[in-house]
Amino acid sequence: MKEFKVSFDVTDKSVSVPSGTLLLDAARLAGIGINQPCGGQGRCGRCAVQILDGAVRRRSTLRLTAEDVALGYALACQTIVEGDVQVHVPLQEKIERRLTTDLTVADVTVPASYQFDTDQTIRRVSLTLSEPNMDDQTDDLSRFLTAIRQQAGFAQVSVSLGLLRKLGGVLREGQWTVTAILDTGFAEGETSKTARLIDILPGTVPEAEPIWGAAIDIGTTTVTVWLADLVTGKVHAQASEYNGQIVRGEDVISRIVYLGKNGNGDELKLLVLETINNLLESVCRQAGGSAKPERIVKASIAGNSTMIHLLLGIPAASIRLSPFVTAVNQAPLLSAQEVGIDIHPEATIDCLPGVASYVGSDITAGVHASGMDLSPTLTLFMDVGTNGEIVLGSNEWLVACACSAGPAFEGAGVVSGMRATQGAIEEVWINGKDYEPSYRVIGSVNPAGICGSGLISLLAEMFMTGIIDKAGNLNMHLNTPRIREGGQGPEYVVAWAEQTKTGRDIAITHVDIDNLLRTKGAIYAGYSVLAESVGVSLEMIEQMLIGGSFGKYINVEKAIQIGLLPDLAWDHFKFLGNTSVLGAYYALLGRKSRESITEIASKMTYIELSADNRFYEAFMSALFLPHTDLSKFPSVNEALEGQ
Amino acid sequence: MKEFKVSFDVTDKSVSVPSGTLLLDAARLAGIGINQPCGGQGRCGRCAVQILDGAVRRRSTLRLTAEDVALGYALACQTIVEGDVQVHVPLQEKIERRLTTDLTVADVTVPASYQFDTDQTIRRVSLTLSEPNMDDQTDDLSRFLTAIRQQAGFAQVSVSLGLLRKLGGVLREGQWTVTAILDTGFAEGETSKTARLIDILPGTVPEAEPIWGAAIDIGTTTVTVWLADLVTGKVHAQASEYNGQIVRGEDVISRIVYLGKNGNGDELKLLVLETINNLLESVCRQAGGSAKPERIVKASIAGNSTMIHLLLGIPAASIRLSPFVTAVNQAPLLSAQEVGIDIHPEATIDCLPGVASYVGSDITAGVHASGMDLSPTLTLFMDVGTNGEIVLGSNEWLVACACSAGPAFEGAGVVSGMRATQGAIEEVWINGKDYEPSYRVIGSVNPAGICGSGLISLLAEMFMTGIIDKAGNLNMHLNTPRIREGGQGPEYVVAWAEQTKTGRDIAITHVDIDNLLRTKGAIYAGYSVLAESVGVSLEMIEQMLIGGSFGKYINVEKAIQIGLLPDLAWDHFKFLGNTSVLGAYYALLGRKSRESITEIASKMTYIELSADNRFYEAFMSALFLPHTDLSKFPSVNEALEGQ
Repeated sequence: MKEFKVSFDVTDKSVSVPSGTLLLDAARLAGIGINQPCGGQGRCGRCAVQILDGAVRRRSTLRLTAEDVALGYALACQTIVEGDVQVHVPLQEKIERRLTTDLTVADVTVPASYQFDTDQTIRRVSLTLSEPNMDDQTDDLSRFLTAIRQQAGFAQVSVSLGLLRKLGGVLREGQWTVTAILDTGFAEGETSKTARLIDILPGTVPEAEPIWGAAIDIGTTTVTVWLADLVTGKVHAQASEYNGQIVRGEDVISRIVYLGKNGNGDELKLLVLETINNLLESVCRQAGGSAKPERIVKASIAGNSTMIHLLLGIPAASIRLSPFVTAVNQAPLLSAQEVGIDIHPEATIDCLPGVASYVGSDITAGVHASGMDLSPTLTLFMDVGTNGEIVLGSNEWLVACACSAGPAFEGAGVVSGMRATQGAIEEVWINGKDYEPSYRVIGSVNPAGICGSGLISLLAEMFMTGIIDKAGNLNMHLNTPRIREGGQGPEYVVAWAEQTKTGRDIAITHVDIDNLLRTKGAIYAGYSVLAESVGVSLEMIEQMLIGGSFGKYINVEKAIQIGLLPDLAWDHFKFLGNTSVLGAYYALLGRKSRESITEIASKMTYIELSADNRFYEAFMSALFLPHTDLSKFPSVNEALEGQ
Repeated sequence: MKEFKVSFDVTDKSVSVPSGTLLLDAARLAGIGINQPCGGQGRCGRCAVQILDGAVRRRSTLRLTAEDVALGYALACQTIVEGDVQVHVPLQEKIERRLTTDLTVADVTVPASYQFDTDQTIRRVSLTLSEPNMDDQTDDLSRFLTAIRQQAGFAQVSVSLGLLRKLGGVLREGQWTVTAILDTGFAEGETSKTARLIDILPGTVPEAEPIWGAAIDIGTTTVTVWLADLVTGKVHAQASEYNGQIVRGEDVISRIVYLGKNGNGDELKLLVLETINNLLESVCRQAGGSAKPERIVKASIAGNSTMIHLLLGIPAASIRLSPFVTAVNQAPLLSAQEVGIDIHPEATIDCLPGVASYVGSDITAGVHASGMDLSPTLTLFMDVGTNGEIVLGSNEWLVACACSAGPAFEGAGVVSGMRATQGAIEEVWINGKDYEPSYRVIGSVNPAGICGSGLISLLAEMFMTGIIDKAGNLNMHLNTPRIREGGQGPEYVVAWAEQTKTGRDIAITHVDIDNLLRTKGAIYAGYSVLAESVGVSLEMIEQMLIGGSFGKYINVEKAIQIGLLPDLAWDHFKFLGNTSVLGAYYALLGRKSRESITEIASKMTYIELSADNRFYEAFMSALFLPHTDLSKFPSVNEALEGQ
């Protein structure tokens, strides 16, 4: 096959590739990373590069305007080499550190009932062994096991090969006085007499000396780690960071697609491990003192099913394909070295149990953290992160569904969309007379784009001021230069180029609006069909709990105006922040919390919406602002009539 | 510190080392391997090199004659660099393939009672799973575990992360019909409902298809592997090879010393793993068909305690130092990938239980293979390999001891000693008139040295013909040129230079004889003190079983004449060959055999001789031929008187 030379303006290295090679692969060969938020499906348009010279063939130009194509732009994931090519690679979007964190360390309350000695699965015991002599040549392991049985009551303790290798040295270094750290396992209950040895240390350790544990939430977008002292239960440090997998797809589907296209290797596993390991180092640095990654002996992990599969290197392809089955909802307890998390190699890794492909342990942990499983109040729990999961129920029953909402509210699929970082427009007000907007920007700098809460706010304002109609169509007849025909059709300009960080107009296009309507429509259809399927009408819902960091910044009024949230009294809504990491933290601490999450997972009935005709109908009806049936949104109706 | 240049005649590479560096370390730096049969203790003299030029300091010249030293010879492990040095490295002894193997495949009888379905811990079950659909989105693992519970009766099956990763693919490849291979564990008995998944294969497997297992005996000198089909129990192939650790010490003490001197790294572990893995490949090649290392799902391993520690990378230093304690006598079940054995990564590795530092699982397995633990006959079991272990007892009780016999009968510590390979003199006859010897050589070639059975034979003949007296002193007054004063004192020439392979006289020196007397004295003292300690006199012993390949070639009459074996009727002796691998094979097959070995280990009382004054006294009395007290050897007394 003929080979062609591909050179890039960002590196001196040019590569020689066979005809038909994807530009993306040529770039990778040259050591250039090109972000692929959609995982290489040609959907997001973020991998666009500019062909300066040479022959290529574009399989798809979705998300490129005719003008872009005329300028030579091409999607790296959809364009193949057909001759020697010179390529300009635009500056790749840097994923900036999240500005806002969730609950601060001081905000996290240790559960009042927490008792290290009874609730915690980790035990620390000091042992004094008899010294061997010529009349007692018992082997080290038997001597140790006898001491732990007699002095700590564990009849059966499993010891790994790694610990067997260090046992003799530690016994002698401690002059036959040692401290053992054990995991008694959550399944057995408090009376357990079996345990797994995690570590053995020479000498005794003061009782108040912390035993470190980590609660980890692996979100599709953000990974959060809390470092806690298992003795007191207190959280000592927290850190969040974008999930390193983002460059390989913004949503779970994109990542599964990416993995399939790239030989199902370890890349995504290694990316999220790198993120987790960096965060663990960071929380230990923050906490100081004895906190070091290698001294963390237990980690509880929550995440959606895809995130858990990718973390463990378990193929996730079946999650994406009908009938949407996971390989495992409840992973066995693993050790840190098996998983690749850089804490104590024998540390227990407890991936909390999920329910289905699209209802993972982020939801079971979240439900536990929200307390809805213990309350008689009829509650709708919603976690709108990169995916949208919804749980309805009370202490008596729980039903759940997932809607492939798409990450539109996280800025993907929207031309000017961005994440909630510095420079993002997070709230918009539009003057009903001249259609001039005002807005608030995170970090009070010139805006670079619009984040989720900004998009909800913008959509609501455009609707309430008549810039768009209930179908989302822009009114081209209004007397304002902000509404215009752009490269991708009709659009409304939120910020003019001279006021923006990028030097380009920030606008919302008709296509963007369609994407946003589909997302909010899917979420509305999700919870309304879920409620209907158990004979509950939305008005009956007594409280609505919203998890996920996204929720915190939503303006309830505006979210109701666009039909994203149901039309309930405002005091019915509670924003809980990151319930997933909070649930993981509870599970890290307490045997009972851990059991509750298992119970939630086993009693939660999953309803598959994609097989449900009612969902499709509800979705179609919800593609309007706020809804085809205005009687479902009486407060919005009233506001519109009041104008 | 001053640096000096050391150059070697076997490589162009010279090295620069600080003053005071051992020649051995300088050679290693230059990439030259010098054998260290004694582990670098300066005891064996095999690491001698010749200093052609330059300044060195000899810390010890043991095993070198004044003539050797005058010629520039120096022990590489005992000589330090004090100036630029040029070194001649003699050709290192090649470790040749053993000529003789043990029982042939055809000789091994499958225990008549062996029933795969009940005796074997490994199970193979075919499962048909319901296919997932939109109404049944159960995760793969739960679906699999349900099938295995319903169709095979296992209530609890542990699945490793590695198998979780392949589970989904295999289920789909087999279109929801799969074959699981499980280990039900030996501890639970036949009614066990818990199991560990070893492998999962798509589709069904014919019932007669072999399931491969390996029995492994790790001797200090030789490693033996038997490949068996667990379904029929039949042994399909066997292979033996020198333990790759030999170059780092001929006995266990030398290897522990070597390890300590060389940073306690992985070297010895990797050497024996290489030997084992080569043998596993070899048996699979021999067996052909479906036999492949990666299809071996279980291995039972017997070996002395040091060999098991070194295999598992567990520090063995405490074995050598008073109070002589092992790290572990009974290792937990491990997986092949943990240990580093190149068979199926999840294969069960069962290191059989030992009793003490110097009574390992080679002995417990050997006792089981010998059947003495089931018989009322009062039996003395002896395994004279590189170490000497002795067990006395019956089905009612067992006592054991070890004597640091030293490897003299394996050729070490004897100038002309060699292993039982081609060119070794294995039997000697001496004419009582002219003191001329005749001998038989393995392979019928010119002799290169004398192996263990040859040394016993030689010693007995020299004694019975009066060449040596009962104290082992050579009679310098006999009229034969074969008795002479050599470089290391008095010696007897067995073969003149013109008849040898090496072109040098093969002689046995006074020092050699002393070494042999010490070895046989230690063994005699071992079993006699052992018997005495339980109130048994040697005449009461009803049978004497001799394990170890060494035993097979011993001439009983001559072994009694030198006082190595007790003076019992010849029909009391049985030579069993490699009982260790036979016991490992029985344990590989049958749950009951495996339990018997555990029982043997727990009921065997270990008697520490090094702490016993009686041993020292018995040893001193046994340093004569056949013994100070001739009444203990009436048959020898009679023969001497009859001359």
